[in-house]
Amino acid sequence: MKKVVLAYSGGLDTTFCAIHLSQEKGYEVHAVLVNTGGFSEEELKTTEERAGKLGIASFKVLDVTQTYYNEVIKYLIFGNVLKNQTYPLSVSAERILQAKALAEYAKQIGAKAVAHGSTGAGNDQVRFDMIFQTILPEAEIITPIRDLQLSREAEIEFLKKHGVEMNFEKAKYSINKGIWGTSVGGKETLTSGDTLPEEAYPTQLTKETPTQISLQFEAGELVGVNGQKFSNPVDAILKVQALADPYAIGRDIHVGDTIIGIKGRVGFEAAAPLIIIKAHQLLEKHTLTKWQTFWKNQLSEFYGNHLHEGHYLDPVMRNLEAFLADTQQFVSGEVKVALKPYQFQLIGIDSPHDLMSAKFGSYGEMNKGYTAEDVKGFTKILGNQTAIYHKVNQTLDND
Amino acid sequence: MKKVVLAYSGGLDTTFCAIHLSQEKGYEVHAVLVNTGGFSEEELKTTEERAGKLGIASFKVLDVTQTYYNEVIKYLIFGNVLKNQTYPLSVSAERILQAKALAEYAKQIGAKAVAHGSTGAGNDQVRFDMIFQTILPEAEIITPIRDLQLSREAEIEFLKKHGVEMNFEKAKYSINKGIWGTSVGGKETLTSGDTLPEEAYPTQLTKETPTQISLQFEAGELVGVNGQKFSNPVDAILKVQALADPYAIGRDIHVGDTIIGIKGRVGFEAAAPLIIIKAHQLLEKHTLTKWQTFWKNQLSEFYGNHLHEGHYLDPVMRNLEAFLADTQQFVSGEVKVALKPYQFQLIGIDSPHDLMSAKFGSYGEMNKGYTAEDVKGFTKILGNQTAIYHKVNQTLDND
Amino acid sequence: MKKVVLAYSGGLDTTFCAIHLSQEKGYEVHAVLVNTGGFSEEELKTTEERAGKLGIASFKVLDVTQTYYNEVIKYLIFGNVLKNQTYPLSVSAERILQAKALAEYAKQIGAKAVAHGSTGAGNDQVRFDMIFQTILPEAEIITPIRDLQLSREAEIEFLKKHGVEMNFEKAKYSINKGIWGTSVGGKETLTSGDTLPEEAYPTQLTKETPTQISLQFEAGELVGVNGQKFSNPVDAILKVQALADPYAIGRDIHVGDTIIGIKGRVGFEAAAPLIIIKAHQLLEKHTLTKWQTFWKNQLSEFYGNHLHEGHYLDPVMRNLEAFLADTQQFVSGEVKVALKPYQFQLIGIDSPHDLMSAKFGSYGEMNKGYTAEDVKGFTKILGNQTAIYHKVNQTLDND
Amino acid sequence: MKKVVLAYSGGLDTTFCAIHLSQEKGYEVHAVLVNTGGFSEEELKTTEERAGKLGIASFKVLDVTQTYYNEVIKYLIFGNVLKNQTYPLSVSAERILQAKALAEYAKQIGAKAVAHGSTGAGNDQVRFDMIFQTILPEAEIITPIRDLQLSREAEIEFLKKHGVEMNFEKAKYSINKGIWGTSVGGKETLTSGDTLPEEAYPTQLTKETPTQISLQFEAGELVGVNGQKFSNPVDAILKVQALADPYAIGRDIHVGDTIIGIKGRVGFEAAAPLIIIKAHQLLEKHTLTKWQTFWKNQLSEFYGNHLHEGHYLDPVMRNLEAFLADTQQFVSGEVKVALKPYQFQLIGIDSPHDLMSAKFGSYGEMNKGYTAEDVKGFTKILGNQTAIYHKVNQTLDND
Repeated sequence: MKKVVLAYSGGLDTTFCAIHLSQEKGYEVHAVLVNTGGFSEEELKTTEERAGKLGIASFKVLDVTQTYYNEVIKYLIFGNVLKNQTYPLSVSAERILQAKALAEYAKQIGAKAVAHGSTGAGNDQVRFDMIFQTILPEAEIITPIRDLQLSREAEIEFLKKHGVEMNFEKAKYSINKGIWGTSVGGKETLTSGDTLPEEAYPTQLTKETPTQISLQFEAGELVGVNGQKFSNPVDAILKVQALADPYAIGRDIHVGDTIIGIKGRVGFEAAAPLIIIKAHQLLEKHTLTKWQTFWKNQLSEFYGNHLHEGHYLDPVMRNLEAFLADTQQFVSGEVKVALKPYQFQLIGIDSPHDLMSAKFGSYGEMNKGYTAEDVKGFTKILGNQTAIYHKVNQTLDND
Repeated sequence: MKKVVLAYSGGLDTTFCAIHLSQEKGYEVHAVLVNTGGFSEEELKTTEERAGKLGIASFKVLDVTQTYYNEVIKYLIFGNVLKNQTYPLSVSAERILQAKALAEYAKQIGAKAVAHGSTGAGNDQVRFDMIFQTILPEAEIITPIRDLQLSREAEIEFLKKHGVEMNFEKAKYSINKGIWGTSVGGKETLTSGDTLPEEAYPTQLTKETPTQISLQFEAGELVGVNGQKFSNPVDAILKVQALADPYAIGRDIHVGDTIIGIKGRVGFEAAAPLIIIKAHQLLEKHTLTKWQTFWKNQLSEFYGNHLHEGHYLDPVMRNLEAFLADTQQFVSGEVKVALKPYQFQLIGIDSPHDLMSAKFGSYGEMNKGYTAEDVKGFTKILGNQTAIYHKVNQTLDND
Repeated sequence: MKKVVLAYSGGLDTTFCAIHLSQEKGYEVHAVLVNTGGFSEEELKTTEERAGKLGIASFKVLDVTQTYYNEVIKYLIFGNVLKNQTYPLSVSAERILQAKALAEYAKQIGAKAVAHGSTGAGNDQVRFDMIFQTILPEAEIITPIRDLQLSREAEIEFLKKHGVEMNFEKAKYSINKGIWGTSVGGKETLTSGDTLPEEAYPTQLTKETPTQISLQFEAGELVGVNGQKFSNPVDAILKVQALADPYAIGRDIHVGDTIIGIKGRVGFEAAAPLIIIKAHQLLEKHTLTKWQTFWKNQLSEFYGNHLHEGHYLDPVMRNLEAFLADTQQFVSGEVKVALKPYQFQLIGIDSPHDLMSAKFGSYGEMNKGYTAEDVKGFTKILGNQTAIYHKVNQTLDND
Repeated sequence: MKKVVLAYSGGLDTTFCAIHLSQEKGYEVHAVLVNTGGFSEEELKTTEERAGKLGIASFKVLDVTQTYYNEVIKYLIFGNVLKNQTYPLSVSAERILQAKALAEYAKQIGAKAVAHGSTGAGNDQVRFDMIFQTILPEAEIITPIRDLQLSREAEIEFLKKHGVEMNFEKAKYSINKGIWGTSVGGKETLTSGDTLPEEAYPTQLTKETPTQISLQFEAGELVGVNGQKFSNPVDAILKVQALADPYAIGRDIHVGDTIIGIKGRVGFEAAAPLIIIKAHQLLEKHTLTKWQTFWKNQLSEFYGNHLHEGHYLDPVMRNLEAFLADTQQFVSGEVKVALKPYQFQLIGIDSPHDLMSAKFGSYGEMNKGYTAEDVKGFTKILGNQTAIYHKVNQTLDND
């Protein structure tokens, strides 16, 4: 029997795929749930139990949260990556890690086929397929939902017929949760005119009194929160998320270009990603030089776009990561952030690498190391070419 | 007697310059206040009266608000320019316009000298000098404050000695106001660790109940607010400012590189600029193509930086403006924005040019114009090079 | 009978298409040869006669050379576009113009189908299809060669069977000629190791004695050669080509990324394009400011790539053209070029806008307008941030 | 007595400085000749002898050729850096290394002053000063030539008066030689209209018969020539130079922006740099992906400009080098180059990492791994956004 590794989440579509592939197509189905930090222990247990009743060959949970941090999130922080200045790429980034984990698992168990439940209208199909094509060039890629284009009702009928018991009620909003944010799609996000209502967001406001927290960074990585050290930045991220959650911080709507050329719109809540990125960026404003900042911005935008579009394995991504990592040497210090209902505010930073600070005497003197005459000379030369240009071309004569 | 045109604001430094230049240096001083939208009629009147007692040759107000919009603000909106993703360049931009207006006035009255009250530690000295050097290459540039480096006390003593009556009490924060925002500097902004207190901001919260407003854009320009048409975008900006003011929206701290190489930090409040830029940017997300957005972002960052650093007359700025203007053809439509205490939220847009909307039938069909097979083919070819790369270089063999 | 507009060149593939579509598929075939400056009057006449015998509905020549210049070549010159620093995009650019002309002709005669003879392995299929999809979204796109994948022998047999008389001998190299260069592919270009032999190039060396020519530019456009004015830059290009042809100048091999992800290699000869671009670029080195040059280079590379990949109708291309055109205001003057066997040499330029020249007195003085002290001050401030950076971070202490 | 480290070349200006500083200013002069590969053993010996007669405290030769390669040239090759698409930065790059070596030597011997012989009109003064300011922030920088602005005649008279014997005849062209090229300035390069005559170039044509050579690269570095392995790329560069010298290859004129805002023009001969860079770039065209090439080009241009302008110690340069180095992993293989009088021609490459080559079976199949239908789907989706754009905006309706 031909082995297939199925990307399985326990939802309607991937449950359909599991049964369709095993019972109708005769595959030996190995369902894999790749956890990127969005499933609780309880959810995992429920999913496992449910999977156990589908009559498939195996179910396995791969927790890739750590790899996700090491291989992607770290660089998203280094690059302060917010797609279209808004979206921390919550879903875009985790799909890559999921596809990689699935492909490697398929290699491991000798499966010559992989399956995923993407539809034909979104980005995920492209992300999954691109990773599979590269890592498993010989493998068959199976996408029943995309190919069969069944209605939701037809899927439910099929599952009922096969004795599947699950909650078939359609959630009003489709939610996707991982450590780097939760996406929220549906109704309002399908058109351009409205924002999501309060109740669409999984995390609700439960605290009104502002708090001030502090984030400690070392070489660009979050290593502490409120003075508590974390040996693993993943735990530090979770800590920030826990502190920010009661304030319902980090909600927004992302609008942008899908990989397939149409525009897409999706809501999200991502308190920790937004707080960490903005705090990290503020620290950089104090510690990087002008041209480091300029090039980081230019390259990070492309890095985010290219990742969003599933090009994670293009070697240029490794080259860009090498650049980003190299800029972080002195991005160390503490950032203070105030948490408030629905918003946060950057208070300030403290860093031994602060190019604005005057930690030791000689730096203060250095500031005095130039004179009014120096600046006059500077300005004269700095504006030299523009002055020559207008003189030569007589552009200002009749102004 | 040698004529000098003095950039005059009515403050301590420029009052000192006026008297110093006329009474000690023997210049015929023509004081010019260049208004970029920050002075009320009353303030202008007071300033004029006070100037009249200084014994200088003339006092004149040049209102450049309209030119400021036409030559700079318009492009800052087109480019969604926020320096370091934060600061709408409120002061940086208006200095350019002030310098230009002064230089042109000097030409007009045949003055061979210009004077400004900048110190030797900031950006403004460079901005003023660079514009003067280019437009008035033969003129003498006089900067008494930079050159004499008097203490505040010495200046006050000097003014008292010359019979000047003004409020000599030092404001806790130095404020600079124009139509594109108000900067707030002092105390906390001199170091890295703290933010400005509530009372530092000129505009205080006076309204708690949220409102929703709408902004109408045509080819990238703000032409209406809440459905009311404005033939002049300047008036539309003022309208947005008036609506947002009671909410104390648009406060933040800018940290960045000064032209002279040190880091600088300054607070600001800029409700209208931030609301308009963010609303405009959202409209662009719906109406521009992927690569239009990419290049606009890359170029706008440089445009903002170059403007900030006083390079307004570098012809590359005109070339960049030509690019930006050309992207705006279809950036038309309405953006809904919710105003709340200390923050605003983008609700959504409505535009006949929305690449996401399905205004007419054939567009909906077009979306159906591709099949699952098309996307599979797309993905296969899109990932082709990366797949070949890893195959040729055997980089994934031992994963 | 359903009308189809066929991109027809008179070669084997498009002759096959003509007969296949009319006689086997029952289309009313309107064959159109779009001339981009590569066909002589005689060649056009021969092609017309041959087409007349194919039993198709009509044959038409559309000469788009002028449009080609106005809409594409002009900007390739403004941008000094050489793909991968080598290739003037001879073929890439003309395909766009051909596709546009065909699409517009189809609209005009009410054809609901267009056909082209591209294979499934190259760039041209993508270029044609992308233009057709956009301009003729409802039209059927027919590509018999790509779909049938017949061998050359099968095509010949088919044509012989249908009584077609033409030279069926395969040329050793496939040649594509237009006003912006001639591509030469085959044998050596199919692998990576060798260059094309002398005899592969259509234009052979016939003159050994060097000549010096001069090119006159006005606002970036070539308006004169050797002092002779041309009201149409197309004629000026032809003049340069005629002067350079005997020297066998402008041969090279382009290696680069195809649109479909594989690498491609093609030889070309393009004397006029290379001479004109290099001369134009030299003139720009004298007349543009540093940042104009920087951004022109950055944007032109993308412009060339995007054009190469068939994205001519992406509106970002118009925005980039607006930028490029705006930079050309003062790119006027004369460039001297020496022509030699297989190479040319830029001699120098003469321009009233030369930022290096000292045409009038005051400019010379301006150069003297700064002192040694000015430069010292300039350097001190220019290096300020880097000095602070190393001081703060103590990076040079143990060097 | 105060120690000064003097950048000494043995020419008129630095000889003047040596005597002026020791005999008139009372410094303990330590003259240092920093050799970047341009001085022969014999020249060094002559210079040492001559220096011995100047009555200065010490003379020392620092050979930094190896460091020059390791810290700069390597990255210029990785980045294919040709300033303004022409100039390998021969002089710009070596000045940095010279300044660094001088600064470090000053630290070593405890000198609190450094001196160089730059004039006030060029780039070198800025390069030297910027490095000194950063590495030796406390040191005095002495520039007698810039400050005194003596005429050549006055300098000669001064030297004669102090008993210096040297050839005082002015060379028609000023020559600066290092391992990465030789600059040639004077007469023709002072204006815009003419190129340098044959005799201006130090290396003359002595061989007419073409040869073909091969260059072996490993991870972007030149490790072999004609199959001969070199453990040190410096030796490989010298080998290429020796092979190319008889053909008088690599001459050109660089025109561009000086650091001080005026335009500058200088001739050069740089056979090895140009051959190596162009060969390396061809190898990259075969081994890098599309976006690696794009970003390398964008970043390399800035890297070259920033280096040219003396910003070598800006940490962004290290970040860019990290990027460039990371791209070179598979830039390995052989490039064949034909050498001819005054020119060279790239023949082709051979590399196991060639993305065009079909070294093993499965790669050939991969190419066949897509179908005509795949490409049609690809194109449909690739052009989707542009098609939607024109549909929505009805831009093509009346074409």
